[in-house]
Amino acid sequence: MPDPAGYTYGTDEVARSPVSLAELDELRGTVGLTEEDEHYLCLAAEVLSPQAEAMVDAWRALIAGHPHLAAYSAHPDGRPDPRYSAASKPRFVQWISDVCTRPYDRNWLDHQHEIGLRHTRTAKNRTDGTDAPDHIPLRHLLAFTAPVILTTKPFLQGHGHSQDEVEHMYAAWTKAVLLHVTLWARAYTGPDDW
Amino acid sequence: MPDPAGYTYGTDEVARSPVSLAELDELRGTVGLTEEDEHYLCLAAEVLSPQAEAMVDAWRALIAGHPHLAAYSAHPDGRPDPRYSAASKPRFVQWISDVCTRPYDRNWLDHQHEIGLRHTRTAKNRTDGTDAPDHIPLRHLLAFTAPVILTTKPFLQGHGHSQDEVEHMYAAWTKAVLLHVTLWARAYTGPDDW
Repeated sequence: MPDPAGYTYGTDEVARSPVSLAELDELRGTVGLTEEDEHYLCLAAEVLSPQAEAMVDAWRALIAGHPHLAAYSAHPDGRPDPRYSAASKPRFVQWISDVCTRPYDRNWLDHQHEIGLRHTRTAKNRTDGTDAPDHIPLRHLLAFTAPVILTTKPFLQGHGHSQDEVEHMYAAWTKAVLLHVTLWARAYTGPDDW
Repeated sequence: MPDPAGYTYGTDEVARSPVSLAELDELRGTVGLTEEDEHYLCLAAEVLSPQAEAMVDAWRALIAGHPHLAAYSAHPDGRPDPRYSAASKPRFVQWISDVCTRPYDRNWLDHQHEIGLRHTRTAKNRTDGTDAPDHIPLRHLLAFTAPVILTTKPFLQGHGHSQDEVEHMYAAWTKAVLLHVTLWARAYTGPDDW
């Protein structure tokens, strides 16, 4: 499969994160992400990647159910923008595999900052050339981690792994999602606050 | 039991949150908190409140294991400050019950903003008169939600509730914690970004 349009992982087009690898190391400690978690993220990738489009559909169904969230991907007058939704979907799908499989290195750090910026006035809409609102408030990015975490559990179940393995994959997913969103928050805050 | 020292819930001493009840309502939608979740939070309160001190001990053991986190409650030269730790503990313990039982109204919203401010240069150390670093970066506040969420699961188990009830309590706890931290983030960001 070719990379999704507008997906710039590891290229010169991606922003440079102001976060240092030493700060990342501390953050991994705070979130509690261990080598065992990385093992279970690899296992989770096998289970989730084939279902990633269904997961994005589930999250988007939740977004569609809340007008204040749906507005961020709609035209200024509130009409849905199917072209924007279609263009951004493959990147959202790709993100699920990336969470589980990408090594947490400089390229990964830069990519997280790029994702953060693409939710803010700095870069939202630019990739897909849309006229949607140009900023998603940090509060909704943070709060939406709850459904992103919780709705993943059923996708991990029923695919041949023991309940103990499912719980380990789910815990690793929880830590990884919160680490990602913490890095995205850097696009919203100055170095002295973040 | 008297209120913990420095615990100002519902009093005139608490900050006023700039967040409106309408914004709170939207955030509850984003996080997915339902009336069913509130029922399970009440159930969780019965299980967790008697164990709240042990939960705080578990979290503080994790903090103590990371020098970059331990520093925020220590003296400037890194020596632990047992007086500060002892003074703030009853409020941390109280927070666990409050998450589960307080109605999400104006007083609750103001209290969350007060907690947010007490992590920042505006009000950290003021309540207990300490000389610890005057600011906890937003990133560590956000990232530490992972252990606060994940370590709660074992405390919910083994207290006479079915596994299904435990899962419901755990999901409600996850949503509630993320809602709280999202509100604390307001102390770190301006109205246009948050």
